[in-house]
Amino acid sequence: MREIPSRPSRAIHFFDPSNAKMAAKVPAMAGTVDVLLGNLEDAIKADNKEAAREGLVTIGRETDFGTSQLWTRVNALDSPWVLDDLTRLVTEIGDKLDVVMVPKVQGAEDIHYVDRLLAQLEAKAGVQRPILVHAILETARGMANVEEICGVSPRMQGISLGPADLAADRRMKTTRVGGGHPGYLVRSDAAKTDDGYDVHGEQTPRSTYQQDLWHYTIARMVDACAMHGIFPYYGPYGDITDVVGCEDQFRNAFLLGCVGTWTLHPKQIEIAKRVFSPAPEDVEHAKRVVEAMGDGTGAVMLDGKMEDDASLKQCLVMVRLAEQLAEGDPELAAAYGMKG
Amino acid sequence: MREIPSRPSRAIHFFDPSNAKMAAKVPAMAGTVDVLLGNLEDAIKADNKEAAREGLVTIGRETDFGTSQLWTRVNALDSPWVLDDLTRLVTEIGDKLDVVMVPKVQGAEDIHYVDRLLAQLEAKAGVQRPILVHAILETARGMANVEEICGVSPRMQGISLGPADLAADRRMKTTRVGGGHPGYLVRSDAAKTDDGYDVHGEQTPRSTYQQDLWHYTIARMVDACAMHGIFPYYGPYGDITDVVGCEDQFRNAFLLGCVGTWTLHPKQIEIAKRVFSPAPEDVEHAKRVVEAMGDGTGAVMLDGKMEDDASLKQCLVMVRLAEQLAEGDPELAAAYGMKG
Amino acid sequence: MREIPSRPSRAIHFFDPSNAKMAAKVPAMAGTVDVLLGNLEDAIKADNKEAAREGLVTIGRETDFGTSQLWTRVNALDSPWVLDDLTRLVTEIGDKLDVVMVPKVQGAEDIHYVDRLLAQLEAKAGVQRPILVHAILETARGMANVEEICGVSPRMQGISLGPADLAADRRMKTTRVGGGHPGYLVRSDAAKTDDGYDVHGEQTPRSTYQQDLWHYTIARMVDACAMHGIFPYYGPYGDITDVVGCEDQFRNAFLLGCVGTWTLHPKQIEIAKRVFSPAPEDVEHAKRVVEAMGDGTGAVMLDGKMEDDASLKQCLVMVRLAEQLAEGDPELAAAYGMKG
Amino acid sequence: MREIPSRPSRAIHFFDPSNAKMAAKVPAMAGTVDVLLGNLEDAIKADNKEAAREGLVTIGRETDFGTSQLWTRVNALDSPWVLDDLTRLVTEIGDKLDVVMVPKVQGAEDIHYVDRLLAQLEAKAGVQRPILVHAILETARGMANVEEICGVSPRMQGISLGPADLAADRRMKTTRVGGGHPGYLVRSDAAKTDDGYDVHGEQTPRSTYQQDLWHYTIARMVDACAMHGIFPYYGPYGDITDVVGCEDQFRNAFLLGCVGTWTLHPKQIEIAKRVFSPAPEDVEHAKRVVEAMGDGTGAVMLDGKMEDDASLKQCLVMVRLAEQLAEGDPELAAAYGMKG
Amino acid sequence: MREIPSRPSRAIHFFDPSNAKMAAKVPAMAGTVDVLLGNLEDAIKADNKEAAREGLVTIGRETDFGTSQLWTRVNALDSPWVLDDLTRLVTEIGDKLDVVMVPKVQGAEDIHYVDRLLAQLEAKAGVQRPILVHAILETARGMANVEEICGVSPRMQGISLGPADLAADRRMKTTRVGGGHPGYLVRSDAAKTDDGYDVHGEQTPRSTYQQDLWHYTIARMVDACAMHGIFPYYGPYGDITDVVGCEDQFRNAFLLGCVGTWTLHPKQIEIAKRVFSPAPEDVEHAKRVVEAMGDGTGAVMLDGKMEDDASLKQCLVMVRLAEQLAEGDPELAAAYGMKG
Amino acid sequence: MREIPSRPSRAIHFFDPSNAKMAAKVPAMAGTVDVLLGNLEDAIKADNKEAAREGLVTIGRETDFGTSQLWTRVNALDSPWVLDDLTRLVTEIGDKLDVVMVPKVQGAEDIHYVDRLLAQLEAKAGVQRPILVHAILETARGMANVEEICGVSPRMQGISLGPADLAADRRMKTTRVGGGHPGYLVRSDAAKTDDGYDVHGEQTPRSTYQQDLWHYTIARMVDACAMHGIFPYYGPYGDITDVVGCEDQFRNAFLLGCVGTWTLHPKQIEIAKRVFSPAPEDVEHAKRVVEAMGDGTGAVMLDGKMEDDASLKQCLVMVRLAEQLAEGDPELAAAYGMKG
Repeated sequence: MREIPSRPSRAIHFFDPSNAKMAAKVPAMAGTVDVLLGNLEDAIKADNKEAAREGLVTIGRETDFGTSQLWTRVNALDSPWVLDDLTRLVTEIGDKLDVVMVPKVQGAEDIHYVDRLLAQLEAKAGVQRPILVHAILETARGMANVEEICGVSPRMQGISLGPADLAADRRMKTTRVGGGHPGYLVRSDAAKTDDGYDVHGEQTPRSTYQQDLWHYTIARMVDACAMHGIFPYYGPYGDITDVVGCEDQFRNAFLLGCVGTWTLHPKQIEIAKRVFSPAPEDVEHAKRVVEAMGDGTGAVMLDGKMEDDASLKQCLVMVRLAEQLAEGDPELAAAYGMKG
Repeated sequence: MREIPSRPSRAIHFFDPSNAKMAAKVPAMAGTVDVLLGNLEDAIKADNKEAAREGLVTIGRETDFGTSQLWTRVNALDSPWVLDDLTRLVTEIGDKLDVVMVPKVQGAEDIHYVDRLLAQLEAKAGVQRPILVHAILETARGMANVEEICGVSPRMQGISLGPADLAADRRMKTTRVGGGHPGYLVRSDAAKTDDGYDVHGEQTPRSTYQQDLWHYTIARMVDACAMHGIFPYYGPYGDITDVVGCEDQFRNAFLLGCVGTWTLHPKQIEIAKRVFSPAPEDVEHAKRVVEAMGDGTGAVMLDGKMEDDASLKQCLVMVRLAEQLAEGDPELAAAYGMKG
Repeated sequence: MREIPSRPSRAIHFFDPSNAKMAAKVPAMAGTVDVLLGNLEDAIKADNKEAAREGLVTIGRETDFGTSQLWTRVNALDSPWVLDDLTRLVTEIGDKLDVVMVPKVQGAEDIHYVDRLLAQLEAKAGVQRPILVHAILETARGMANVEEICGVSPRMQGISLGPADLAADRRMKTTRVGGGHPGYLVRSDAAKTDDGYDVHGEQTPRSTYQQDLWHYTIARMVDACAMHGIFPYYGPYGDITDVVGCEDQFRNAFLLGCVGTWTLHPKQIEIAKRVFSPAPEDVEHAKRVVEAMGDGTGAVMLDGKMEDDASLKQCLVMVRLAEQLAEGDPELAAAYGMKG
Repeated sequence: MREIPSRPSRAIHFFDPSNAKMAAKVPAMAGTVDVLLGNLEDAIKADNKEAAREGLVTIGRETDFGTSQLWTRVNALDSPWVLDDLTRLVTEIGDKLDVVMVPKVQGAEDIHYVDRLLAQLEAKAGVQRPILVHAILETARGMANVEEICGVSPRMQGISLGPADLAADRRMKTTRVGGGHPGYLVRSDAAKTDDGYDVHGEQTPRSTYQQDLWHYTIARMVDACAMHGIFPYYGPYGDITDVVGCEDQFRNAFLLGCVGTWTLHPKQIEIAKRVFSPAPEDVEHAKRVVEAMGDGTGAVMLDGKMEDDASLKQCLVMVRLAEQLAEGDPELAAAYGMKG
Repeated sequence: MREIPSRPSRAIHFFDPSNAKMAAKVPAMAGTVDVLLGNLEDAIKADNKEAAREGLVTIGRETDFGTSQLWTRVNALDSPWVLDDLTRLVTEIGDKLDVVMVPKVQGAEDIHYVDRLLAQLEAKAGVQRPILVHAILETARGMANVEEICGVSPRMQGISLGPADLAADRRMKTTRVGGGHPGYLVRSDAAKTDDGYDVHGEQTPRSTYQQDLWHYTIARMVDACAMHGIFPYYGPYGDITDVVGCEDQFRNAFLLGCVGTWTLHPKQIEIAKRVFSPAPEDVEHAKRVVEAMGDGTGAVMLDGKMEDDASLKQCLVMVRLAEQLAEGDPELAAAYGMKG
Repeated sequence: MREIPSRPSRAIHFFDPSNAKMAAKVPAMAGTVDVLLGNLEDAIKADNKEAAREGLVTIGRETDFGTSQLWTRVNALDSPWVLDDLTRLVTEIGDKLDVVMVPKVQGAEDIHYVDRLLAQLEAKAGVQRPILVHAILETARGMANVEEICGVSPRMQGISLGPADLAADRRMKTTRVGGGHPGYLVRSDAAKTDDGYDVHGEQTPRSTYQQDLWHYTIARMVDACAMHGIFPYYGPYGDITDVVGCEDQFRNAFLLGCVGTWTLHPKQIEIAKRVFSPAPEDVEHAKRVVEAMGDGTGAVMLDGKMEDDASLKQCLVMVRLAEQLAEGDPELAAAYGMKG
């Protein structure tokens, strides 16, 4: 019996099981990425929905996933495909499937539905280990209900930001999939003269500062996860060619509390693994603080800075994440000086 | 019988019906701006409250508004004027009035009160078409209740940010009406030497980055509207002379999901119409994506970028907005290549 | 009988009552800082918990605090120390203690517990004036419940941001105590060529803009306080040496609506008092607006800008804060031209 | 300025202000019944609604009500009359009117509406003393919301059971207005023989026991009032001729916690005053317990029964009610040996 | 396309589709009873669950139900059978099935699950008319949530009391299925002598009065239905031989607001149809009141009793129920003098 | 380490630890009654509060309670005694104390307070086994919150009805402690003549039927307990001499779902043990049903009555209760033919 996955995953790599070429690459990717996700929803043509589902059944049966987890993204709960998606996958590869990602989640009742259906299908199929559930945050209503979505079921594993659907639902005027937008900015004041605003204000050069479109969204999503002990993830970064912007976006999510991201291209896997693994020097510093703090109370001076119970907790976040990641990644273990 | 307004309005133009000069200009503005709003509340002197109300009755009766809507902002629900405002306007020009804007809304009970009062007054006056309600978000309590405010009644048309009142209620230390503040900024780290922070940190030049005072406020307001199918608006931009800052602020709101804004001066109308109408090239791109996506499922490559079901939805937001705006604006229709 | 404190405090200065050197300085600081807070929680070694508690009893008994208030931060509600902290302090120095700061508050039930315990201890000790309660916001769950925490009891005086604990609870990957992080940034688009994105996008120089890690957190905390009529505070700024960054952080909080901050070092007291007192020229401007607006309705032109009922409220925030601060600070009173 | 009524009223006597004969009797009844209520709603013909309203205005103006209170029952909140009912009555006789009874209340929002409207009308009319609000419980939805209805506004004075409307809304199959129904009964078991149920069960005489249709309804209504400190009332007893059944129904309500009832006929006034005034011997017993219990703690033996803190509270309910009623009723005061 | 059933059903007759003898009688019963319900849950042996399900499919396909509705009771939501029950029945006889009865409902989430599953199965099977849902109230938790259960979905048709399961869940000490219990009684006081309680109290004969075990349960269930516009039903009366007790129980439910009941034996069908059809003389009286009340306002004297707007509503309940029942029952139509 | 009590207790016997005579009898009662409760609250004079508390400490220390549990009722949460009650008892006899009964509980926050205080005191005193909490339902507000009170903490053991305090809080006009009231009754209709109600209605003898004052209260309390898996109890029956009325009241509670009661006199202990133990013939019948039902599905005929899954559950309630009681009561075990 396989374990229930409780480790954060840095990269959730999407593949199209109806695409023979992509499918053929899956076995080789097993073990090199934290999660391999067979996508049945968006980007799969209606005519290919069944082929994708059956392709995933075949891949699930025939592949040895090694240290990688197997996830799927099923079709939306109001689509004509989702009932067969769940029935077929749980029945056929329920013992291989770690997590079901559910799109367009609007409220706790959506998770409750999937929870109960999984329970009945697992029982019928004799699946021994509960399949976990991951929600995508891609509607304004889901945003308003995000705290109760995260807490509604012990199956909840995590939640991902779905920036394209969410932007559309909010009528945000961006057609980019994730990332920033050059038009969202603030501008410095015009230079003033002695008697008030300069009448030529428009001509005076004024600096502009681009802003983060996703600050509120990610910050609140992280809180909802933290209060219920599940994992927050960034979602897709659509511009495959912009690896710099991609890395920025991943790092923002990491700093704000996310544990990983989706990846749509092998280039992004490499970025995700790097960004969502704490830097060895940060881990090293954190280990020194932990050691210096002894029983965890009081305060110590380290490198001229004071560390106390609260900063210790911040350091423990680093160290524990490093330990969890090192377990499945020998290279990282070596870099951290930990056992893999 | 006139239609119930369901189109987003880019510019809600405020006029003072107690000001004879302003009032005289109203007929000429009809048809050139989406909404003409007769203001009875803030900026109207207590002594002029009745004159403003009666002035609006006269304007309402005598003006042909063409494609423009007629709105009013009534006095606050705890003021001595609001009951007469509503009674008189519904009774006298209820068939001309499209939307009542309610200031300082604190919770669902405020909208419920206006809803029921309007129903009774409409019935007495024989008004055939329900007058809609628009709330202004200008208290911290209203912010905490914004989701239930937006959903409490089918009369709800939209909500506007009231940055000056909201800032005062929050005790924000800005006396500007909307827009940014140069003091809200983050600063880059001081340069480090090899062994830690530079002891002369203060003297080293460090870059500063101004931040958006309104990010959380607008983002959550947009979500509350989107989940209940009503329209979010930016409110007043007080510094009439700063047309650049004004355009920045309007664009931020547009990008985050707002459909329009208040305008306090003709210069701002022009900016609002430009900013809140999607750029023709963006509409053109969106139309191409919509066409390429056929039945709306699957993924296509366009100009070297992948588009799928989710990015299609973002494009549909653009196209549908363009279509709605084009209907009432022949010039724009031409620019979009759509029928007006 | 002393008054219940209702004035905002710009600086809440922390001292360790188990540290004899620090304790000896307390009498001299009385009257020079708004609040002197005897810390019993984080940064106090487990072995020193009793010494700190008894130290505070002694200081409380023997010190004349003048215009300064006396606060304490007790240990967490799930710690083995908090019951004795409260019992001992209320019994021994309950008539001197103004506010009890409660760490790691998760929900209304935590405040209710402290409220009832204080009521029973005050009754037993014959304390005539209710001791107020201040919560620290340092968990994701507390964040989700912040509105009900602020409103649960008439004892609630205010709430402070606890950025280190909160960051740890959210698994934010920063080990700094408050302030910004250079990695949280957005980046401008790569330069485009005529036919789309530059294929050498990565090499083109692109500007980066650092973002505020705490925008959502502080903005929502301020709203929760404002809707319940209590005071929001920034908390600790850990990097004592970075006085510039400290001032930036304090000013951000001030602009967003906070009334004060914690101070961990005398250098920070001076910054706090300066930043959280409105600038004399802003107060002067606000007074002119107030005067010009007469009965508070209508609109006036002042220095070429329109002021109305809403901007008047913003100005009253300034003037009233100035008046409250001037009462206890003769120097400030002089600067504002007010009576102290 | 008259006092705000805070005394429970035993009898709320209904009269039809459009009925000249009834109206003429009102002055003579003043002082002989706790409340005189001018009814504008059910039982007033649509054609007479205005006459009733104006009749009440005249009666209100011209009558000296002495120790009686003046109440009105306005039309339903979704009727075409209620806005004029409230506007006209508050404007014309707002200083005479003690309580407005609101029919068919469904939820807190209904009371909020009346509360705000009264506030605005009182302000306009210069009414110095708040007019209180009394709700009628006559819908299933009102029943489900009864706790929040009772607590929504400080104007709430009490709530009455409306058994006819409530029965109709519940589709109860009774066409009686209040009181019992002979068909609601339980029946004793059939006699058993040694080996089980008697095969002639139907022929064996079996006792039947009639049940109270209103137990749940009144019990929960009483709790809702008690938890919010307002008064519960029974409503109409429709069968004027059945004075025995009427007295039973009133007594049930009194025992379960109601303080009074409606009266539809002078015969019922006499019953109500008798039933809702505690019996002099019960008051006498209660006074003895109160006296014997001294400081209110401990237990005493009185007439061979133990009395303690809890039974003391029951006795205080009796004594305080007696005192309140005696204040306005010299005869009763004499019977209780209290000062009137 | 068949109509959505909106008529109350007096008798819901249970049959066991795995019992060939019972199944054979179904066609003959069609048209003689309001509802024929194929039971798959309690009383069906685990070994017969599939046979029952398939038996119902056959019956559903082959029977012409005439004016009778076809319902089913599926197995509990946590059983291993329910998913196949729903899948198979909707797929095979979805166009014949009017209502799915769901046992052991605990909260709104249970109905939501069935609602969504039915939607997906209907869509796949091309069922044109939504299958409605009926909940059984048989747990204490369901009782606490009964209002939200009734209102959670537009599919909700009604709710039935399940007295055996509910009694077990509450640990009520009765092993009867519905009906009363001789041990639940109150007793009159012992006779008193002049100086207090009789010391031989026990020997004095004291009357006992049996009480209704189900008053609170049915009263609250009726309210929950009424506020959401769905139908309340009594459930099973287990003692088939006690037709008198059965009739009492049915009548109690009818008087309190229920529209029908389950029947477990043909004898009970006859009782149910009689009891849940209003008596012709009551309908006659109600019709006279309706006629006399004209526009529905005011009051009239009829047979020496006053009728007004409220008693009119009670009469309309009778008349409308009679009309609805008469539509499908020519005999009843004749008795009421209505068209069938 | 003693076990956490999970068995229902039929009799909770109250004693006054400040009464030396009563206290002396406690050791002899140990083992003969399910619970011995040392009362510190009502019926203990203020002057004796400390003596009672210390008396209980002594009894707790010195007594071997055998199979009896030791409970205490502490003073109210707003009294000056409760903090010392809890502190002293947990510190001194925390390892002996099974349950703390909390009076006048109004809401979940009251239980939360006791829960947290117990946790801190247990930790300090090294008590290994959590002390459970029992609430008394004696306010209207507690009634409205009873579901959340029962579910707020895993320490919750049960809840008791407090009829005297509850009656006082509701202003019920009874001064009896529990039991019925002769004035709460319904009356049969007057005999009718051919043409309607008899004009001499009052003279015709009409039967009266006394009603149960406590039906709603107990029924809802039982549900609240059942849904959270805790035990409901009746409380005090004040009239010690009326053993018949006492037995009736206990049996009503037992039938409605209660597991036990308070006893104020040894006579009541005997009644409680008899009434709250199911009758051996009922247990015998239930065992036969359980046996006949095999795997628990389907239906069987037994003694001419049908038993199915639902009636099996009712029988299991009987059998399991019998088993639990038999464990601690050899006499009962013999009567049930079970092992003790």
